[in-house]
Amino acid sequence: MADGSLNALVEALRRLPGVGVKSAQRMAFHLLQHDRPGAQLLSQALAQAASNVRHCTMCHTFTEHELCDTCRNPQRDRSKLCVVETPADQAALERTAAFKGLYFVLMGKLSPLDGIGPKDIGLEKLFARATDGTVQEVILATNFTAEGEATAHVIGEALKARGIAVTRLARGVPAGSELEYVDLGTIAHALVDRR
Amino acid sequence: MADGSLNALVEALRRLPGVGVKSAQRMAFHLLQHDRPGAQLLSQALAQAASNVRHCTMCHTFTEHELCDTCRNPQRDRSKLCVVETPADQAALERTAAFKGLYFVLMGKLSPLDGIGPKDIGLEKLFARATDGTVQEVILATNFTAEGEATAHVIGEALKARGIAVTRLARGVPAGSELEYVDLGTIAHALVDRR
Repeated sequence: MADGSLNALVEALRRLPGVGVKSAQRMAFHLLQHDRPGAQLLSQALAQAASNVRHCTMCHTFTEHELCDTCRNPQRDRSKLCVVETPADQAALERTAAFKGLYFVLMGKLSPLDGIGPKDIGLEKLFARATDGTVQEVILATNFTAEGEATAHVIGEALKARGIAVTRLARGVPAGSELEYVDLGTIAHALVDRR
Repeated sequence: MADGSLNALVEALRRLPGVGVKSAQRMAFHLLQHDRPGAQLLSQALAQAASNVRHCTMCHTFTEHELCDTCRNPQRDRSKLCVVETPADQAALERTAAFKGLYFVLMGKLSPLDGIGPKDIGLEKLFARATDGTVQEVILATNFTAEGEATAHVIGEALKARGIAVTRLARGVPAGSELEYVDLGTIAHALVDRR
């Protein structure tokens, strides 16, 4: 694979997360040998998304409009605000159909080691929104990782100081699991948070 | 992630080999949130490669020209022809700097279950080239998988019937390995092919 535009393609594919040299070569080979329409399609989809997709002015998620579909929906309960890290997390919550409120998507998490501070995930905007008088409860649904927990802690403390009711997703034993195979930390949390 | 051009991007990314819904969403999120220049770059690289890259008329590998760099190189020994499955395999052989001949890149392998027959990997063209009077030896360097072995067998038999000298890459114990940890099939082959 020595030619210019082929090398350029392999290099460009390597910018995708989780794609190394071998995978990039395999992808380039597949597209050029077996799926040129797919290559054209992906090229157009990338160009369109890169120029059209922006952030919802209310919840920060990706959208092509001023406001995303969820924020525009009049059926949504505006008194509940659920804070998530990414649009994928939001999608996971939406699939449960158990939450009818609105979201605030951080588009990241606090991560001092990576240089990601409160400004990078729009915390000032979140605090302004949470204290607008409409929101009655903020539900912290960041991930249960070290960084997600730290992010939830920082947001929770700041909102409590402003007199907002803050809750966190329950930690506990996953549905359908046998205690014998659940890790110790999860069982300990489930014991402490028993109801 | 509900909007049109975002969904289109996720769908298009799924056409890449080894990329499912989750990976595609993660890639789309990464490009749109952290690397929009990368998205534009990849878009252009895909469009350019899809329209510029074609097959070398002599060896079938990817190139932007009539003939690839290797086939154009006058320093190459035109009496030796090495048959490989993909450009990546060719690149692996080139990195050894142990082969100075030319290549024929099948751009695939015989795979009846996937409907890939002799015509799809250009065997007629390979036979014509091998019998042009210049080629003295054909070296079969297809992979040592079931399909690669079958492909080598078919090509080998056909060329021998045409009176061409055919060799196959040696099977044996990999360099730097301890016998204790080498699989049985490899040791058995190394015993049979001992020299």
